[in-house]
Amino acid sequence: MRPVVIGIVGDSGSGKTTFAEGLVNVLGAERTLAICIDDYHRYDRAQRALTGLTPHDPACNYLDILEQHIDLLREGEPILKPVYNHSGGVLEPPEYVEPRPFIILEGLHGYATSRLREHYDLKFYMEPQEALRLRWKFQRDTGPGGFGYSVEQAMALLPKLNRDSAQYIAPQRNYADMVITFYAPDERPDESGGGLNVRHILRPTLPYVDLSPIVETGAGSGLVLELARDLDGRPADALHIFGGVDKAEAEALQEQFWQLLPDHRGRRPKLGIYRDGANVAHHSLSLALSQLLIAHYLLNAAVDAHAN
Amino acid sequence: MRPVVIGIVGDSGSGKTTFAEGLVNVLGAERTLAICIDDYHRYDRAQRALTGLTPHDPACNYLDILEQHIDLLREGEPILKPVYNHSGGVLEPPEYVEPRPFIILEGLHGYATSRLREHYDLKFYMEPQEALRLRWKFQRDTGPGGFGYSVEQAMALLPKLNRDSAQYIAPQRNYADMVITFYAPDERPDESGGGLNVRHILRPTLPYVDLSPIVETGAGSGLVLELARDLDGRPADALHIFGGVDKAEAEALQEQFWQLLPDHRGRRPKLGIYRDGANVAHHSLSLALSQLLIAHYLLNAAVDAHAN
Repeated sequence: MRPVVIGIVGDSGSGKTTFAEGLVNVLGAERTLAICIDDYHRYDRAQRALTGLTPHDPACNYLDILEQHIDLLREGEPILKPVYNHSGGVLEPPEYVEPRPFIILEGLHGYATSRLREHYDLKFYMEPQEALRLRWKFQRDTGPGGFGYSVEQAMALLPKLNRDSAQYIAPQRNYADMVITFYAPDERPDESGGGLNVRHILRPTLPYVDLSPIVETGAGSGLVLELARDLDGRPADALHIFGGVDKAEAEALQEQFWQLLPDHRGRRPKLGIYRDGANVAHHSLSLALSQLLIAHYLLNAAVDAHAN
Repeated sequence: MRPVVIGIVGDSGSGKTTFAEGLVNVLGAERTLAICIDDYHRYDRAQRALTGLTPHDPACNYLDILEQHIDLLREGEPILKPVYNHSGGVLEPPEYVEPRPFIILEGLHGYATSRLREHYDLKFYMEPQEALRLRWKFQRDTGPGGFGYSVEQAMALLPKLNRDSAQYIAPQRNYADMVITFYAPDERPDESGGGLNVRHILRPTLPYVDLSPIVETGAGSGLVLELARDLDGRPADALHIFGGVDKAEAEALQEQFWQLLPDHRGRRPKLGIYRDGANVAHHSLSLALSQLLIAHYLLNAAVDAHAN
């Protein structure tokens, strides 16, 4: 059976890695390969400083090699994957990687070319509120266990990064099957952690999943499915999961999700884990529920992929 | 037109790199890609010291990735080639490599698997006299600009290397189209440089090349074509080129070779360059003539490859 390939794209600091780690957790590490496609950097941090290129520019990345490697993994072949050490910003020796049943590709340029876009079974785009994204980005770039930038360095790079993001990253949103937005509740505008709401824009390219049992169970404080307009004005379903969900209702929802999952193998891993600016792990009910929702789509996509 | 792929295999110190450099020179650097396939090392020098593995053991190399990369280059695709820094013995970030009309693959394990062997248009095996090989190997391992081993380290590794060479490298000789042996003339048994003789065992798998004009021109002191027995007892042609060749005759032979080359583009690069133990460049008439002979076979193989 060919691997199921899942894409996660979004601007830097949009929560791609946390999201990918959650998917590995829910799918099982032994059958999931997560690749950071920003490892396909052509230049290290020092070379970028000299050339003025940012990693958000496709020219800064070996996208043709990435295309080739996804081809190979989907065909069941191993690859020798390049390695970029984000802490310190240096290129390192490559690592030998073998395909697994689920392959998650997360990074800046996952949907940049048509050859890349052909390969995914499901495409996600991460688009948190801009204030949240900047907060998360600076925490990671300059915080403990992070990328090792000084605050001044990170600030100085921002205008160029934002320019390239607008040109190269944001347009990839159009190709996603689902757009995920973390946002602060109106009543707690400074929320940036476990109490965030999550909106999932469900586009028509998603495989059909019957959400009605979930929507019923979460009808108190947990979630709502509403008709909304996408950025381009087209109608779309928007499923909101609320950070203020009642604990008992959250547990009933989680139970409901696990029951509905077509292949959870009796495993119930701990979901909803994220790290704060001091690199300390926390738990979020809304994040856990969002991960379970997405697991649904993943496992349905897997059934589709293997039926074809 | 697909690239013409040329293999050079032989034990360490057998002269593969010098031979490959000569071929790049005669074919032209702009249309020739030379890859050291020992760059596909799985472990660095320190890891090998811990595990007791030598590079002469196929398990010490990513041969499946090498197979894949040759496939890709032959299909006209670029690769991200791993890099092993032989001076110091460390793995480094990979490099982006694009195919060229001629691709030379030189290293220890080029004919180790049937999938590898399928890819070559011409397969060479380097087998100098054993005393010469050891001399060349120690010069390179321990000499200036070499691999950075101490003499004691190089000596200590020798028994394991020779054991693995007998098991894994020497059997690859059977797959070669031509076996090249540098040897000292009887009258100068200590010769190790420009005055060496070269024997070329021409196996029936080589494309047909009419050597008669060359054999006539070199009939004085330059070369001789004789019927010989291969290692396994089978009959084979053996073309000897002599280090003691008369200078005027060598020039006539070179002229003859250049005239016969189907595509030399009016270029007559300086051939026969090798480096001694102090890393100083020298010139050898017999090496130059050997390189021209082989260029013949290469360019004939190219014509064959592109006619098919």
